[in-house]
Amino acid sequence: MLYDHIAVNGQGHLTISGYDAEALAAQYGTPLMVLDESVVRSRCRVYREAMAEALPAGSLPLYASKALSFKRIYQLAAQEGLGVDAVSAGELYTALKAGFPMDKVYFHGSNKTDFEISFAMEHGVGCFVCDSADELRAVEAEAARRGLRQRLLLRLTPGIDPHTHVKINTGRIDSKFGAAIETGQAEALLREALDCAHVEVLGYHCHIGSQIFDHAPFCDAAALMLDFAAAMERKHGYHAAVLNLGGGMAVPYVAADPRIDYAANIRKIGALVRETCGRLGIEPPAVLMEPGRSLVADACVTLYTVGAIKEIPGFKNYVSIDGGMTDNPRYTLYQSAYTVYLANRMNETAAGRYTVAGRCCESGDLIQEDVSLPRPRRGDLVAVLTTGAYNYAMASNYNRVPRPAIVMLGENGPYTAVRRESLDDLIANDL
Amino acid sequence: MLYDHIAVNGQGHLTISGYDAEALAAQYGTPLMVLDESVVRSRCRVYREAMAEALPAGSLPLYASKALSFKRIYQLAAQEGLGVDAVSAGELYTALKAGFPMDKVYFHGSNKTDFEISFAMEHGVGCFVCDSADELRAVEAEAARRGLRQRLLLRLTPGIDPHTHVKINTGRIDSKFGAAIETGQAEALLREALDCAHVEVLGYHCHIGSQIFDHAPFCDAAALMLDFAAAMERKHGYHAAVLNLGGGMAVPYVAADPRIDYAANIRKIGALVRETCGRLGIEPPAVLMEPGRSLVADACVTLYTVGAIKEIPGFKNYVSIDGGMTDNPRYTLYQSAYTVYLANRMNETAAGRYTVAGRCCESGDLIQEDVSLPRPRRGDLVAVLTTGAYNYAMASNYNRVPRPAIVMLGENGPYTAVRRESLDDLIANDL
Repeated sequence: MLYDHIAVNGQGHLTISGYDAEALAAQYGTPLMVLDESVVRSRCRVYREAMAEALPAGSLPLYASKALSFKRIYQLAAQEGLGVDAVSAGELYTALKAGFPMDKVYFHGSNKTDFEISFAMEHGVGCFVCDSADELRAVEAEAARRGLRQRLLLRLTPGIDPHTHVKINTGRIDSKFGAAIETGQAEALLREALDCAHVEVLGYHCHIGSQIFDHAPFCDAAALMLDFAAAMERKHGYHAAVLNLGGGMAVPYVAADPRIDYAANIRKIGALVRETCGRLGIEPPAVLMEPGRSLVADACVTLYTVGAIKEIPGFKNYVSIDGGMTDNPRYTLYQSAYTVYLANRMNETAAGRYTVAGRCCESGDLIQEDVSLPRPRRGDLVAVLTTGAYNYAMASNYNRVPRPAIVMLGENGPYTAVRRESLDDLIANDL
Repeated sequence: MLYDHIAVNGQGHLTISGYDAEALAAQYGTPLMVLDESVVRSRCRVYREAMAEALPAGSLPLYASKALSFKRIYQLAAQEGLGVDAVSAGELYTALKAGFPMDKVYFHGSNKTDFEISFAMEHGVGCFVCDSADELRAVEAEAARRGLRQRLLLRLTPGIDPHTHVKINTGRIDSKFGAAIETGQAEALLREALDCAHVEVLGYHCHIGSQIFDHAPFCDAAALMLDFAAAMERKHGYHAAVLNLGGGMAVPYVAADPRIDYAANIRKIGALVRETCGRLGIEPPAVLMEPGRSLVADACVTLYTVGAIKEIPGFKNYVSIDGGMTDNPRYTLYQSAYTVYLANRMNETAAGRYTVAGRCCESGDLIQEDVSLPRPRRGDLVAVLTTGAYNYAMASNYNRVPRPAIVMLGENGPYTAVRRESLDDLIANDL
């Protein structure tokens, strides 16, 4: 199977860490997102331990919670000793209500509103990741008003192209994020920040993209950032104590994807950082990383009930499910690959290729095309793997479809972490 | 200006039916969707009157509420004498709670769940639009259980390609929707439906696509459907009393788009229907149409506050707004064109081309690229026109961004029809 925690039991049912998918669907209904705590926790530990071992003191993974944000996930991050990357007042509020320590929160976003800047300071957010001169001025003004000194990192664009899908490629110079090193805007932003009385610049941040399978782009980015740090140290006497390399490590979605040794990648980044700092003659900074997808994506399976089946001779076969782009818009947005099973008939041989269609009245509402499956029947159970990241987070109520529940597989069994939306939830704000 | 109800006042502010956009933003906050009742009502009347005049008795427009579904909009549709097309229990429930007469509801969807089939019958939905044999059997079984006879239309795919964006092109044979005429599956579905004791087949439905500027594809579709109807009448003695031609009439989004005379299109379709029926020797059916976009899209303007501005020499200029793909994912999904203004400085000359970027931490979160604008400043107001259809309906909480409010411009002034989501709304289902 694609992952170690996915298997097939004696009844030919898919199991998730030993739990029968059909039994979970029967108990909690569909569509259902089943998120395995132990996978999330073990991945957190891989990052935390490898970073503690291979990187300078103070290095830490921050959970990039835009991948999947709900109260319970922040509690897991806290228990595993991670910091958090949050990108809006909504994510900050969720972390706050989950009891996450706000001094370990890094507040991201290319367009923080004045309300959000004030809200973050009010709740003692540890560090801003400042994206632009406009934001710097707003932060300085609000910190002055509050009589405090706000810690921040400066988000820079090193100009790396990690060759991923253009929509999730954020480290190029032509980007809505950060200040480009190459144009001189990064240096200008640093100089302005160092002149701010109510701002303490801890160091630099960059994020080069998403779903990156190789360690090399991270090493390239780290080298460029350290070159810049050394140049600024020589020129302005400013030493950056922190280098945040952002997120972007991939997960395999289908059998053909390479498997990733996260710890080995971190060790390679660690070696590059020490070697480069030695060569440049600067003190190695603490390194932060912001895994999102690689902490949660493969921990989750979405279960759907099959409805209409359509076989169009000479054209295509469609199998419709009771969810789709409303809970997982990634195929519609990016034509993302997914592994799909007929979860209640795992041992039957494939009868044909089926396009898995969502329930929305929109032709583009597909989850995957041309998947080999046994001939599906109304009432069968479809499982889509690797749905932990950017699925529930991007879910909508398009066609007024309620968002699914998230059931977590914990140490003491399954429990509901996010309730299924009700019909009344859908009209709660309609006056 | 693009539309008659959009203008500029003495202070150089954009006005919407005379209301100052800056004053609305100041009163209700941003992002804000401003929906003009009078535009919706007048478009409803154009459809209703032209259809009554040019089409056989019983012809009626049905509001395709997937374009924009909230309680108040169903009340408008009811007041204007329209029927409604709903595609889920959520849309049915919203219509129900708005007091919309359920016998004037047509229940669509390529994958109605068993719960939804039961829910719709429980509340007396007037007509199902049956999409597949699987659904037909489920409807027959549930109607038998309830001891009733459910009226329905059969959704067919006539195989028309109206040359629109592939994702919103639903009349081709290779479609998750309906039964294809060409493959013989439409006839098979009809024969099975005519044998169902608890089903009354009113006629046929087709939907050929979206954002169609020309009347010709509708006439082509009508001709194909009437050919099929006549063939079935000869072969099986079944007369279809209703022909539902679906939706799909376009609205202009930018100055270069053609303007559409909806009434003239309807008259052309009416002439084609009468002529074809005469030639085929069948009684002309009542014609239903399902306008969604063309009733609401151009009635709405979304207002945003400008945050960070980024000018990257030699690359691109970005202006960030306090919304984006969370309230309007259409550019991200389809690269849709929009007309964008700097609403508080309408009389100033353009200073350059700016890419209007949303606030999400995602490179693809853009609303429009390379728009000519005066040099924007933090705090300026951006207006995006034609946001009534498939904006709020497709809105998400990605990055935990709350969904905007919808303020309607009514006969007695502006009023809130949908409340802005609060931070507490965002965590309401997190346990």
